[in-house]
Amino acid sequence: MIASTPSPPYYAVIFSNIRSDVEKGYAETAQLMLELAEQQPGYLGHESVRDGLGITISYWKDLESIRLWKSQSDHQLAQQMGRDQWYTSYKTRICRVERDYGFEADQKE
Amino acid sequence: MIASTPSPPYYAVIFSNIRSDVEKGYAETAQLMLELAEQQPGYLGHESVRDGLGITISYWKDLESIRLWKSQSDHQLAQQMGRDQWYTSYKTRICRVERDYGFEADQKE
Repeated sequence: MIASTPSPPYYAVIFSNIRSDVEKGYAETAQLMLELAEQQPGYLGHESVRDGLGITISYWKDLESIRLWKSQSDHQLAQQMGRDQWYTSYKTRICRVERDYGFEADQKE
Repeated sequence: MIASTPSPPYYAVIFSNIRSDVEKGYAETAQLMLELAEQQPGYLGHESVRDGLGITISYWKDLESIRLWKSQSDHQLAQQMGRDQWYTSYKTRICRVERDYGFEADQKE
């Protein structure tokens, strides 16, 4: 569930969002966009959580990969639907991951 | 709930985590750390969601602000408690936010 990503530098797109009450088409489109993103060149992984506020972070090899995904035609349509129907507000932040570190507890049997 | 942040560049610390089943001390400490972070120089805001996976993103003016917060003594203790008790795994990513854009639906009365 925590994305496995290579050593920095790589890029992150943080998509913070608040949903509207329109359900129609949302879940299917979100799932489809995820499947399409995974096929894009430069896709490295993603993490997604919602509890009122939704945060989806996708990780990418470089800015060009992010640009190509943003302009992908099905994704363009989904972005338009998002603004028209599914979100009351969102903020997208394009970030360069400069450093990372992690922790894994010993596996307990 | 979506953090208001200034024009880029600024910095983001993405903390992706999985909790253990240890509850003792967690909620109080998380709340205290948030209050302490808000008082730190260079703190710009945060977003936090949990649904199994937890994602907390804090936003900062610069890398020096992040370094000072990481080394703050109460926070150091909380980080140690996190590794010892509260998390089974986490990943921290230090990012430079290079670009951002947002959307707000028209207010409907």
